[in-house]
Amino acid sequence: MFQGMGNQANRQIIFNQHPEGWPERECFRLEPGDSPEPKEGEVLLRTTWLSVDPYMRGRMNPGPSYIPPFELGQPIEGGVVARVEQSRHASFPEGTFVQGMLPWADYSVSDGVGLYPVDPSLAPVQRFLGVLGMPGLTAWFGLMEIGKPQPGETVVVSGAAGAVGSLAGQLARQQGCRVVGIAGSEEKVNWIVNELGFDAGINYKATPDLLEALRAACPKGVDIHFDNVGGSIADALLLCLNRKGRIVLCGQISQYNLTEFEQGPRSDLLLVGKSARKEGFIVTDFQDRFHEGVAQLGKLHASGSIRVREQVWDGLERAPDAFLGLFRGENLGKALVRVWHPDQSPTG
Amino acid sequence: MFQGMGNQANRQIIFNQHPEGWPERECFRLEPGDSPEPKEGEVLLRTTWLSVDPYMRGRMNPGPSYIPPFELGQPIEGGVVARVEQSRHASFPEGTFVQGMLPWADYSVSDGVGLYPVDPSLAPVQRFLGVLGMPGLTAWFGLMEIGKPQPGETVVVSGAAGAVGSLAGQLARQQGCRVVGIAGSEEKVNWIVNELGFDAGINYKATPDLLEALRAACPKGVDIHFDNVGGSIADALLLCLNRKGRIVLCGQISQYNLTEFEQGPRSDLLLVGKSARKEGFIVTDFQDRFHEGVAQLGKLHASGSIRVREQVWDGLERAPDAFLGLFRGENLGKALVRVWHPDQSPTG
Repeated sequence: MFQGMGNQANRQIIFNQHPEGWPERECFRLEPGDSPEPKEGEVLLRTTWLSVDPYMRGRMNPGPSYIPPFELGQPIEGGVVARVEQSRHASFPEGTFVQGMLPWADYSVSDGVGLYPVDPSLAPVQRFLGVLGMPGLTAWFGLMEIGKPQPGETVVVSGAAGAVGSLAGQLARQQGCRVVGIAGSEEKVNWIVNELGFDAGINYKATPDLLEALRAACPKGVDIHFDNVGGSIADALLLCLNRKGRIVLCGQISQYNLTEFEQGPRSDLLLVGKSARKEGFIVTDFQDRFHEGVAQLGKLHASGSIRVREQVWDGLERAPDAFLGLFRGENLGKALVRVWHPDQSPTG
Repeated sequence: MFQGMGNQANRQIIFNQHPEGWPERECFRLEPGDSPEPKEGEVLLRTTWLSVDPYMRGRMNPGPSYIPPFELGQPIEGGVVARVEQSRHASFPEGTFVQGMLPWADYSVSDGVGLYPVDPSLAPVQRFLGVLGMPGLTAWFGLMEIGKPQPGETVVVSGAAGAVGSLAGQLARQQGCRVVGIAGSEEKVNWIVNELGFDAGINYKATPDLLEALRAACPKGVDIHFDNVGGSIADALLLCLNRKGRIVLCGQISQYNLTEFEQGPRSDLLLVGKSARKEGFIVTDFQDRFHEGVAQLGKLHASGSIRVREQVWDGLERAPDAFLGLFRGENLGKALVRVWHPDQSPTG
């Protein structure tokens, strides 16, 4: 199946400069790359889909974090689904699909570490970057293990129309909870309520008094805030939180592009009085249990119990735009970049 | 044993006005009270000790909270140890001691609800307002159930010379942790280090750079912050918190006297990256297990494994001063008011 790269040039997206605050197009540059050759024990991969995710903003800062920062002059790295074009590794046959943290490039070489096989018969392969991948697992473990929802409780999801939020809300519905989503446009609110089955939605950009809107949407108060956003939205939610409430700190997109800590009300005293818990996590905390999460999500997805939407950008060169769009509130559902269509290719 | 109140007047401390910010002497007034008479099923109690505790500040605010606010014109209510002077209740014989939430008064009447017997053979009765009472149980359940210390971990206690903090630190030492205390005077730091066995102490009032001092005192970072204080001390600790760290929100004395939310850096993003947990609690969350906590604390106290210090104010009329002193950093160990000495009394 592999016909060699021939003179087909590789292209890659390089981390060009650190952002100061909001990331800009200039943080990235597209440039030709070497055409990599796999050595014994390696595979040559052709990128089919790549994922843009808000957490990647953290890797654009120079300081240490829970994952290493991107290196200037090196390709951006993120979730990728690729086809094995040439294999010198027994676990990854040619023509099969894999998923892993890989460079933003047409082609790359891997020794298989951190590479997972992807079964195209289970779902379209890009789903392994969404509901069956990192965002799905983030929603699953964040909700189930940190939030611990109980039937009849009220769950509010902020960033509710995003890849993680839209799943977290649907999963909470599955658990018998009342689910309210907060998002930034009418289109998003319509989607989560009318298509995903959220009980209510709030367009925070069109709501003069978020606290009042929350109180109206959550007559029994809030038991779980699945927090993708932080900032003043989280402040309002804390005021609605019930005794023994849980704040699942999944993301803080309102804070990612700040150059210094934003000031906000100190509210820990409220957590004391409410005996409430606020807990951060990253999906790899649950790495040992990914198989379990994927199995659950796969079942729900296959049965149609959870629905997904993909926002697709076509072409490797669009990856920066797709990424930047995350912070402008542009995406609805999972933002993906389709780098190559295997079925339209002569080798497909 | 009971010889009747005769013409012995009752006195009580009345909640006189709401504080605006810092509480003042004018929030309280001492006045004569009725001499209560127990009905069938009631007991007449004579207050021997009363407890002043920081949480009581919250009850001085008019709004709803996790416990009802004090009512203007009514006696202040708090932890009290009393002797049963006259009993018309089978569970509480005359001459025995009890503990409960009772009015700040020389005498009071109770129907027994929320009253617990106190055994003077186990420890001096005032200990049931400290190590064997609410502060002890707060330290025990907060540390063990919220903090969940593991041997070799580093625990930092803020408000370390207070009734709860001084116990929490000693209990963490018992669990095999390195324990660092933060307090507001050299005397306090000397006490926790030299007498209570804390591994290190920091006088935050004399430390120009708390973060630097914390890093020096906690070379392996901080696994648990047992937080009695909040504010900028908690900010510095968060920067030192290790992955999977726990912040036990026990109290926030730096915030109790504010009339509006103080502004501080929004730091939830740090909790995400550290997969850290911040959890509030109130001691009554563990009410079902108080007997277990008292048994553990009683054993440790009886064996000399945990040490206590009492700061005693003499006379009911001093109770407001004792209370106000809590917020001025005046107390070292458990602040108590001795209202009456049974053994100096003709009825003793």
